[in-house]
Amino acid sequence: MKVYSKIGKVYLVGAGPGDPDLITLKAARCLEEAEVIIYDRLVDPRVLDLACESAERILVGKKGGHYTFPQEEINRLLVSHARKGLRVVRLKGGDPFVFGRGGEEAMHLAQNEIPFEIIPGVSSALAVPAAAGIPVTHRGVASSVAFITGHPAEGPESSEHWKRLSRSADTLVVLMPLKNLRWIVSQLILHGWALDTPAALVESGTLESQRQVTAPLGKMVAESATAGISSPALLIVGEVVKLSAVLRGSYQPPKTQPAASQSKVKRTSEL
Amino acid sequence: MKVYSKIGKVYLVGAGPGDPDLITLKAARCLEEAEVIIYDRLVDPRVLDLACESAERILVGKKGGHYTFPQEEINRLLVSHARKGLRVVRLKGGDPFVFGRGGEEAMHLAQNEIPFEIIPGVSSALAVPAAAGIPVTHRGVASSVAFITGHPAEGPESSEHWKRLSRSADTLVVLMPLKNLRWIVSQLILHGWALDTPAALVESGTLESQRQVTAPLGKMVAESATAGISSPALLIVGEVVKLSAVLRGSYQPPKTQPAASQSKVKRTSEL
Repeated sequence: MKVYSKIGKVYLVGAGPGDPDLITLKAARCLEEAEVIIYDRLVDPRVLDLACESAERILVGKKGGHYTFPQEEINRLLVSHARKGLRVVRLKGGDPFVFGRGGEEAMHLAQNEIPFEIIPGVSSALAVPAAAGIPVTHRGVASSVAFITGHPAEGPESSEHWKRLSRSADTLVVLMPLKNLRWIVSQLILHGWALDTPAALVESGTLESQRQVTAPLGKMVAESATAGISSPALLIVGEVVKLSAVLRGSYQPPKTQPAASQSKVKRTSEL
Repeated sequence: MKVYSKIGKVYLVGAGPGDPDLITLKAARCLEEAEVIIYDRLVDPRVLDLACESAERILVGKKGGHYTFPQEEINRLLVSHARKGLRVVRLKGGDPFVFGRGGEEAMHLAQNEIPFEIIPGVSSALAVPAAAGIPVTHRGVASSVAFITGHPAEGPESSEHWKRLSRSADTLVVLMPLKNLRWIVSQLILHGWALDTPAALVESGTLESQRQVTAPLGKMVAESATAGISSPALLIVGEVVKLSAVLRGSYQPPKTQPAASQSKVKRTSEL
């Protein structure tokens, strides 16, 4: 039986927005040395291939933006594995500190005196618009951008939040917008965005299966339903969306052959 | 003499926020195959070490946020090198589409029918706060975040912009804030942020030389001067800054020995 003589360490790691090649060198090295990987459902399986076969893999999935695995349980798992002296990677889609509850996990680790390290990742909030040909800022068009999650519950408090945000930044990016899409769009229009503001809904951004719907804000709910857009998705609102008419198609997703792609990624274990 | 029989391609690549290990696998592979690299001053020299020695390197620096090399000249360089049939990497600090004028370069390439590809990077706007122990969102503290550049000229139009942005998102991140710091802070306070709002100014985030000043917004101009904060820097405003008291120090910058660090990065050329 293994005897654990020292305390381990937890790495809060961003896996990037989808495309497994958008993980950082730092995160890839960290995964290769991991003994336990606690990962979310949105992490691409090809990212996990960077790790040793012997590494334990624990899925703590969230689905449709909802945690099916209680946050307290994830916190407990991180601490208990670190206390066994193990190198634990907490792998999250996108960036751990952008709507990823990475801050909560970090605070919990600090409170329990577990050593930990942050490894930022490419955030979906920026990379998914880019992959759809939409720069979130553009000189003369948008000099500010705001991010919000689409999951605050409907109601007066949420409405107040949307009111503050509406028309504040030139570009608005809403993460996980689908569940409350009708409410979100109505709030944006209620609080000052014009019905004909260009908007885009991007599904599975940066992946082979990426799809997008571009429509005026006022028609987005109907267009999304017609196209059958499903999670994971992201909503972009603002004049910059117009640029996608010219710039879309300029992102190269990973190869579609899973086997070839896997081996390509796997070679990074020689880093 | 080399004969160019075909048109080349331009890759608009994000180099990440500073730490050379925060470049993506996709960007690293792209750099290894580059024949020409057109890069900004803020790109770490260790990132350039990923490229072949034979690759031509062209610095088109901006300093203190100002382009010393006119944008038109950069656009011309991209097109002329691609027309020679070369693989051109346009390497930018952070992410090319976040205040990086990547959108302008992409539009210029499209208009000139030059094939191009976008490779998103880790944005300084998110990674620098993370490296300072500040999650830009945190449940119960901040459910939205806005980014703006600190470079719009002072004046009524700029004031209107700050008015719209102030108090809209829970967290505000200002890129390149130093030149106009006094104006920016006064605008934020004028438009509704309390004098005692927690704020942090981070210099050289994610690098060995990272420094930070944390102070109430109303004292930030004086504190910045006392600490002698210089570019590149980033300003974070909002309650999330308080978390840095617990979380700072959880980012591991690259090793300080340049030689060792270089060879470590160089091994990625075996990818």
